[in-house]
Formats: sequence, C-alpha cells, structure tokens
Amino acid sequence: MTDAPSGVPAGAQGGPSWLVDDILRVEDLLLRTAGASGQPLVAEPSLHLLKAGGKRLRPALVLLSSHAGESGRRATDLAAAAIELVHIATLYHDDVLDETETRRGVPTTHAKWGTEVAVLAGDYLFACGSALGADASGEVPGILARAIAAVCEGQIVETGSVNDPERTPEQYLNTIRLKTAALFVAACDLGAATSDAGPDRRAALMVYGESLGLAFQVIDDLLDLTGDPRITGKEPGTDLREGVFTIPVLIGCQRDPSLARRLASGDRELGSVLPTLDASGSLAAALDIACEHGRRAEGALAELPDVEWTASLRTIITGVLAQVPDVSPV
Amino acid sequence: MTDAPSGVPAGAQGGPSWLVDDILRVEDLLLRTAGASGQPLVAEPSLHLLKAGGKRLRPALVLLSSHAGESGRRATDLAAAAIELVHIATLYHDDVLDETETRRGVPTTHAKWGTEVAVLAGDYLFACGSALGADASGEVPGILARAIAAVCEGQIVETGSVNDPERTPEQYLNTIRLKTAALFVAACDLGAATSDAGPDRRAALMVYGESLGLAFQVIDDLLDLTGDPRITGKEPGTDLREGVFTIPVLIGCQRDPSLARRLASGDRELGSVLPTLDASGSLAAALDIACEHGRRAEGALAELPDVEWTASLRTIITGVLAQVPDVSPV
Repeated sequence: MTDAPSGVPAGAQGGPSWLVDDILRVEDLLLRTAGASGQPLVAEPSLHLLKAGGKRLRPALVLLSSHAGESGRRATDLAAAAIELVHIATLYHDDVLDETETRRGVPTTHAKWGTEVAVLAGDYLFACGSALGADASGEVPGILARAIAAVCEGQIVETGSVNDPERTPEQYLNTIRLKTAALFVAACDLGAATSDAGPDRRAALMVYGESLGLAFQVIDDLLDLTGDPRITGKEPGTDLREGVFTIPVLIGCQRDPSLARRLASGDRELGSVLPTLDASGSLAAALDIACEHGRRAEGALAELPDVEWTASLRTIITGVLAQVPDVSPV
Repeated sequence: MTDAPSGVPAGAQGGPSWLVDDILRVEDLLLRTAGASGQPLVAEPSLHLLKAGGKRLRPALVLLSSHAGESGRRATDLAAAAIELVHIATLYHDDVLDETETRRGVPTTHAKWGTEVAVLAGDYLFACGSALGADASGEVPGILARAIAAVCEGQIVETGSVNDPERTPEQYLNTIRLKTAALFVAACDLGAATSDAGPDRRAALMVYGESLGLAFQVIDDLLDLTGDPRITGKEPGTDLREGVFTIPVLIGCQRDPSLARRLASGDRELGSVLPTLDASGSLAAALDIACEHGRRAEGALAELPDVEWTASLRTIITGVLAQVPDVSPV
C-alpha cells in the first residue's frame, strides 16, 4: 500500500463502497478540524501533511471495527478522525527529530515552516485529535491518551537503543509494540468501544490490531533495507545509517557476530550490510516474523463473523504483507 | 512568586491550610502519574522538571475555583494534576525551541537528555495529562484539549511576529490571551466544571482567569527586561535578543519610532534599549496594563462570595503583580 496522493485514500481502496463513503466523511472531518484556526500560520502547516494524501489506515481500522457493534454512530467518525490527527502529529515530531526533508512526495512541515512551527503544529494536532476524542466522549479520550503515551514511551525507549547492535529481537518487538502497534490496537478498540461491541469481539479486534501493527512495522523496517525508493518514497538504508538497528539487522547480528562488530565500528552502508543479511537468511527470518504476526491477526479474525467487514480487515493484512515483493498471502 | 524548590509549592503558600493539603495531594498524583513508566528512560526525564519545584499556580487555581461548587471531588484533583502536566509539557517544548539551558535552577530536559528525549517526553506529558483528564471525565477532556490547542495557536502566531517591531500592543495582547491566559481560564473553568458550580460563578471565574493570565504574562515580560536574575533565574533581555518584542518594547516603538528602527537594524542589547523604554514611560505603561488586568480580575471576584477561597484568589493577583518591585497592591 503506497500513499494515495488524491481521490480515495488507500485504506479504503479495494474495500466495500460503504467504507469509501465512511472514509470520505472522516476525510472531511479531518480537513475541517485541522483547518479550523482563523490564523493561516496555524491552519496551513496543520493541514499540510493531511492534504498530501496518506493511506488513512488507522481511520479505516476504526470504521471497520465499528461493525462489530452498532456502526454508523457519530462517535466512531470522531474517533476515526482523532486517531489520524494523533498519527500525523507523531509524524511531524518524528520528521523534526530525524531531520527528514520530504514525506508523501512533499517537503516536510519543518522543511517548509521551520522547526518551531513543526513542533508546535504537531502539538496543535495532538490537541485537535484530543478535542475530537472529547467530543466523542465515553471511553474515547482515555483510549486515545493512553495510546499516545504508549507511542511516546516506545519512541523514547528506541532513542536509548540507537547504535546498539546487541539489542535482542525480543527487545525490538517490545519497543515496536508500543511505538507502532499501540495505535493500531487503539484504532480497533475505538471502533469496538464507540459501537458498543461485546467484550469477546472487542478482545479479538485488539489482538488483530496488535498483530497487524507488529507485522506492519517489521515490513516497514524491511522496506527501509530492501524497498524501491520510487515506491516507498524514502532513501533506502536510512535507519541503518542513523544507528537504528531493526529486526533484520538484529537477527543478522545474532547469526553473524562479525556484523555486530562491523556496525559498532561504524560500517553502516547498505551496500556492504545487505549481502551479509541476505547470506545469513536474516531478511527471510524477519519476513517470517511479519508473516507469523499476519497469521496471528488472521487467527483473531477467525473468532469474528465471516462477513464483509472482516473480509476487509483480512485484505488489510494481505496488503501490508504484500509490500515486500516475495511474500505470498497468509 | 518565585519557584519553591522543595516543601510546599508557592501556589499554596500564604493560603489556607486546606489548600496546602489539597496541593500536596495533587503533588503526589503528579509524581505518580509522570513517573508511572517502568522504563527509567521515560520516567526520569518526565519527572525531571516536576521534581525541580515550581509554583503549582494552575493546580491552585483549579482547587480554589472548585469551592465555587461542591469541592473535594476526585475529578477536581485529577483536573488539577492534568493541567500542571500540560503546562510542564509546553515548557519542555519551549525550552527545546528556545535552546534554554537551565530552568528552576536545574539543567533543562533537553540539556540533560538531548532534544529527541525532551520533545518526546513533552509529548508523553501531554498524553499523561490527557489521560488524567479522561479519568476525570465529564467536561474535563474537552476543556483541556481546547486549552492546549489555544496555547499552541498563540505560540505559533508568536513565531510569526518575531523580529517585527511594528506588531501593535493589541496584537500582542491577543497572542498572550491564547499563549498564556487560555491555560489560566481553563484552570478556573476546570475547578468550576468539576464541582458543578453554577453558570454565573463559572463565568466570573473564567473572567478572573483570563485577566490574571494577561497580567501574569505582561509582568513576566517586564521581568525579562528589568528583573533581578538572582530572583527570576533567567538572563535579562533574552526575549529582546531573540527578537520577541513584548508589550513594553512595542509601546516604546509606538512612542519613539527611532527605537523600532534601531531594533530592526539589530540593536537589541538591553543596556541600550532599557534607558529608551524608561525615558518614554513605556515600562510604566506596560505595568499600568498589568495592573488594569489585575483590577479586572479583582472585579470578577467581587461577583463571588467574599470568603476564604476568593480571598486566596485575590492574594494570587497581588502576588503576581508584586513581582515587579514598585507595584502597589491593586
């Protein structure tokens, strides 16, 4: 799934027509919320990344999960828009901290307006998301706030692991469970909570969300090493050069201790590291882990009715895994 | 009011004994919330500024305002702690963006742990504050989220006014109404909302909060020009050197256009600007504006019963204004 710069967001593509309608309604809410300030210096940077496109994967998860209960409620739309604003806020801060210059084919907010505006617009989007969550009321504000806290915890823990080739794959998985999967879990939980789905369905959706989130991050990390920059929109090997050693690299270090020594001594060029990872089967092993989490997500869906909305959730798993070319569907 | 590095926070000093008890209960909640992560790399930077002291002025406003209705509720404590965490989160991001090295007599979070951790710990504290607000439920999450959005709007607008000596005093006041006063309004509103105070009392408290917030910021800006660094803990003239022209300077530019030209040409040393501001009566005029807002805050209190908690709110006005030495009480 690549970013869809215009038209129907990729999170709804290939799904049922009602999902397209739902996503477009949330899209309208997103643009009106992030653009609500009368101050152009606030509204323009806040709308910047939203207008550049994006998959709207998290809103799609909220909307689809809401079919576990009584779908079509206003609170579900509010929660779907809220979680996307929170996600975008994290991207604003990530891009400042990583000094990323482009995202979704456009200059990043800090590249265009400077660091100060980008940090503050990120804070503003967190607040806008929280305000939508407050309007949704019920459990939504708490689910959102705790998910943001978990994402930040994961990101802070990751800063402490930079340049550490000794981090174990298990430590990596615990970090991405917070950094990435927490927002996927929250998305599914928000759909279930706002539609008053029963506890069994809600629990199954949260297992689905966590497994999908873990698979998503492992695939994203593989794409950083092996992805086609024309498709990913990112320079390959960025994590590696910045000392962020992801699971294919950490498996590689376990299988071939000389790799850990090379990384520690500063050899972090993709051209020299990639053949080592390939030779030791570390790329394939990471892909296996992603597929295993994809199968776990499938298993969670098996506890839910076999209907259109669960089929769409299944399609999302396949779409995430299919980003790495030689993965067969789960 | 200077920061109290230990013992009873200054926001409760000189107040009734029940306020001290209330503030210490909120203090405990603050430390437990910000320190809840099992990850030391998350808990330590998140607790850092809280442990360095602070006045706890905003929690004191929440707690005192709650006496307009049925005080002593758990939701009031949660809201009081929530707004302080939000305030501290804004300080973390301010200090990163202003490259401030010390605050409250200790190295800032970014000076100690780096920019990445400081930005993310600020985000984490926003989330912790929002989670406490969600636990308080009712109107609390919405009041908090909208206040955070207003603060960010004010801060972004201010970045657009840097190096602009033509900004009018009215534009300045509109900016600080968002940047600073919005959190004071929210504090008073949270006290009233969580105690089910009636609409008249709630409205009066919000006028009080806004006026106090405006007076507070004007005094803070005067202290940046004339304050004793041994008391303020800050290097004088910092705003001026960074091109942040506050109300005494903007009044000075209106009264003496040659000052605007000097500032535009880069002459921003306190030693040369201060005598010009003094000679044109601009410092005194800014002080008058602070006192006028102090009187407006007094006027709002006159609509409330003349009892112990309103007397404490009156003492806070006097305390804010008395920071500039030659101000007589309102």
